[in-house]
Amino acid sequence: MSHIPVVERIMSQHDRVALRNRALLDERGVHAINVMAAPGAGKTCFILATAERVRDRLRLAVIEGDLASSVDADKVRAAGLPAVQINTGGNCHLDAIQVGQALAQLPLEEIDLLLIENVGNLVCPATFALGEHTRLAISSIPEGDDKPFKYPFIFANVDVLILNKMDLLPYIPFDVDAFCRTVRGLNPDIAFFPVSCVTGEGLEAWVEWLLQRVQRL
Amino acid sequence: MSHIPVVERIMSQHDRVALRNRALLDERGVHAINVMAAPGAGKTCFILATAERVRDRLRLAVIEGDLASSVDADKVRAAGLPAVQINTGGNCHLDAIQVGQALAQLPLEEIDLLLIENVGNLVCPATFALGEHTRLAISSIPEGDDKPFKYPFIFANVDVLILNKMDLLPYIPFDVDAFCRTVRGLNPDIAFFPVSCVTGEGLEAWVEWLLQRVQRL
Repeated sequence: MSHIPVVERIMSQHDRVALRNRALLDERGVHAINVMAAPGAGKTCFILATAERVRDRLRLAVIEGDLASSVDADKVRAAGLPAVQINTGGNCHLDAIQVGQALAQLPLEEIDLLLIENVGNLVCPATFALGEHTRLAISSIPEGDDKPFKYPFIFANVDVLILNKMDLLPYIPFDVDAFCRTVRGLNPDIAFFPVSCVTGEGLEAWVEWLLQRVQRL
Repeated sequence: MSHIPVVERIMSQHDRVALRNRALLDERGVHAINVMAAPGAGKTCFILATAERVRDRLRLAVIEGDLASSVDADKVRAAGLPAVQINTGGNCHLDAIQVGQALAQLPLEEIDLLLIENVGNLVCPATFALGEHTRLAISSIPEGDDKPFKYPFIFANVDVLILNKMDLLPYIPFDVDAFCRTVRGLNPDIAFFPVSCVTGEGLEAWVEWLLQRVQRL
């Protein structure tokens, strides 16, 4: 019996729409970042802290993904940024089709950087491409330093990892060096920034990396 | 045109297996709790703190669910409790089939209370029955008090909610009363226990409730 090798992965509808989103973003010169994290890691605070530091150099917009409510989009709009809220109605991650619909509601020609806040979840968002240029995960000190062992897929598949809530380090046992070593074992090329969105610690280095990446890609 | 009402939901294979798990647990006199929370909310610490306080009155065992690793089962075994680790290999929640396989590895006739630690995720575990008698969610102070707005399904569908890491309240803005009001708006009958597994605060009230529920059901 001879074997016929399958050399091409059949592309799902979501993957096709993700490529279409990416082509549209490229055409309009928008750099998109898929921001993924567990619930409460500080995604919205991180987006606001980043926006505050780059808004004189980049024009920003935000897509907010949640099961329900517009709590996050309200916060982002209050900071003067254009925001579109996607309610997934129970679904555990954003998908490319939802993001494509949100892109149609944004003035893309007036945007340089689009931050897409995914549903709070360390598992499902990792496997769905949205059309983004940069995949970013946020961990936080209170979650504990063992998370890369337990959720390896997301740590292995992002370009940059933010370790947030460094201001809580005096109150919680967390070995930052061991955490970083474990992450680099899964993903040697990952960029890693320990920060606190409350005190501002570490955000300058992250913003410098971001500005270089947006210009380069 | 006349309408034919659909009065029966077609039962999925998972639901059938969940019922089978439940029947087996009932037959052997085991009370099972499905412990659900976001990553890093303190599920394993809560299980260990609970075990420490009830092990002279109840015989315990633990099923640990994770995408990968045996970090949690190792901790539980080190505390002298029988534990079975399920690695979901990327799946975002435990299912009744996996739990059924784990039950077959446990000496059920020697167990009164089975704590099932689900995958860290505030979304997907909420919709999969495992055969449990009690559904428990853990929130924690660092996650923020807006989570019930954003993940309403899990808060609406558990019997008991633990608010963990109360020892961090001095360092993090969190309105416990507002949080509790929002949760009760979604789920008026929910039992609610603010605790700290580090200091032991609040655990006595939770344990009293637990012992009454295990005896009653």
